[in-house]
Amino acid sequence: MARILNIASAQMGPIARSETRKDVVQRLLALMRQAKARGSDLVVFPELALTTFFPRWFMTDQEEIDSFFERAMPGEDTAILFETAVRLGIGFYLGYAELDLSEGRARRFNTAILVDKTGVIVGKYRKIHLPGHAEHEPKRAFQHLEKRYFEPGDLGFPVWRTFGGIFGMCICNDRRWPETYRVMGLQGVEVVMLGYNTPVGHTGYPDVDGLSHFHNHLSMQAGAYQNSTWVIGTAKCGIEEGSLMIGQSAIIAPSGEIVATSLTLEDEVIAAACDLDFGRRYSETIFNFARHREPSNYGLIVERKGAIPPPA
Amino acid sequence: MARILNIASAQMGPIARSETRKDVVQRLLALMRQAKARGSDLVVFPELALTTFFPRWFMTDQEEIDSFFERAMPGEDTAILFETAVRLGIGFYLGYAELDLSEGRARRFNTAILVDKTGVIVGKYRKIHLPGHAEHEPKRAFQHLEKRYFEPGDLGFPVWRTFGGIFGMCICNDRRWPETYRVMGLQGVEVVMLGYNTPVGHTGYPDVDGLSHFHNHLSMQAGAYQNSTWVIGTAKCGIEEGSLMIGQSAIIAPSGEIVATSLTLEDEVIAAACDLDFGRRYSETIFNFARHREPSNYGLIVERKGAIPPPA
Repeated sequence: MARILNIASAQMGPIARSETRKDVVQRLLALMRQAKARGSDLVVFPELALTTFFPRWFMTDQEEIDSFFERAMPGEDTAILFETAVRLGIGFYLGYAELDLSEGRARRFNTAILVDKTGVIVGKYRKIHLPGHAEHEPKRAFQHLEKRYFEPGDLGFPVWRTFGGIFGMCICNDRRWPETYRVMGLQGVEVVMLGYNTPVGHTGYPDVDGLSHFHNHLSMQAGAYQNSTWVIGTAKCGIEEGSLMIGQSAIIAPSGEIVATSLTLEDEVIAAACDLDFGRRYSETIFNFARHREPSNYGLIVERKGAIPPPA
Repeated sequence: MARILNIASAQMGPIARSETRKDVVQRLLALMRQAKARGSDLVVFPELALTTFFPRWFMTDQEEIDSFFERAMPGEDTAILFETAVRLGIGFYLGYAELDLSEGRARRFNTAILVDKTGVIVGKYRKIHLPGHAEHEPKRAFQHLEKRYFEPGDLGFPVWRTFGGIFGMCICNDRRWPETYRVMGLQGVEVVMLGYNTPVGHTGYPDVDGLSHFHNHLSMQAGAYQNSTWVIGTAKCGIEEGSLMIGQSAIIAPSGEIVATSLTLEDEVIAAACDLDFGRRYSETIFNFARHREPSNYGLIVERKGAIPPPA
């Protein structure tokens, strides 16, 4: 008996700094309705889907910085997303900047939540692999100050039983790190959802930057194949406040094959019927971890953070 | 100052069971000469390059099994490989079945060695991720009895400073596991060499088997990109004793790009000028491990062998 779940990826074009939360939420609602009209049970929105990608700017005024963060979820402007999802009977993954005051100090995370069809937040993930830098680097056309504005996530890479399967989340740069998928794979993940904002021209090497699209799909395809999982990757993309970000949102099968991909750099919904049992032909053969992994040889992965070459 | 090393991948077509070691070594010598004629400093031969891929047969006669193994390296029939390499001034990676009696019992490994231009074995690797099964499975057209005939390697994933760079080795199925590359990446590896014998039709799922070529390149490209390393993958391929094995030998840059690939299922040399510094544009930016990895979140990778789904 196949367990088919219809999943949509709702890519977003650029969000201008001048757009209000209300404006953005209206776009999310339009995408959610499109996803539902295509039979989707679940729609995956991008990373930081409620605002422009603000880590591109160096800011020192904490009030200005915090204007990009959510203090509550749902909040005043986002409640309608939850209400509409319940009414339509569709779940969603949403990325946003989270300001958490629950521990007696302000903590800021790059966060994603998974909301089920009853409007309940069934999972929360806080981005672990923060890219970029913490200090102002004036020579850059655009900053990438995620290490300044966010703390690394403190919730690990959990998975959740929901939507009839086992679901995990990650965000943007997490997708380039095989550890991300593996930690979820070792919990039997069947669907990894992730949103991203990926500016082109970040490394300073034109040849590296020119491969952004290739690297995007390569990372997600390898993660899917090597962990027998679906991967749903959703971009915010296009030229946002002068900065070009890649699109190429994709629904990737446990075979590593791309079964749907976006074509534009605009708001665009793609969807696929995902058989949550499809991964078994991999997880029970080539990637039967219990039979084939050899963890006693993997120690360095946790013992060492940076690379240490052998003595010269 | 670029550190350019010319590296060849010397793919082999099928080796018949009736071919003697002497016959096979003559083929290796011809390939070595071709590699040298193309300016190569180092040539990578396949896994189990001295015999047919014998794990496809269930055998119980230990003497018959051991006829596929080498008791010494170099041995009587392989000494000429070392001598010719010294004369030509070329190094090589060679895969073979190793029968080791040094610890008072017979131990059998799927082994690869790295030999420098002076004929010295500078590195030895024993295959860690043994695929297939240990018991006879009569329903299979061809067995895959690596778990029967070999022990898992006991040498870890070391790297070696040689040929002006940092070199690592793995073998065949190791290349599908991101842990393989990562453990070497954490030691600053610049070139990962690997040989493979990859029969088609192994999983029992025609759709999986039909993607063998895609999965071969996907795994090596992701390993290269995510660890800022060159990967040299060399097949033994073609229809060997009735069993079809994939070719598609490849030289892959730290960008994940394939810079050379074989076109046939026969003995064939491909070569590339590999800048060993090319990986720095990745290892010093996106994949600067010391800046961006978060090992405290990777514990499951070593704590757990098989996948354990959350409670239902």
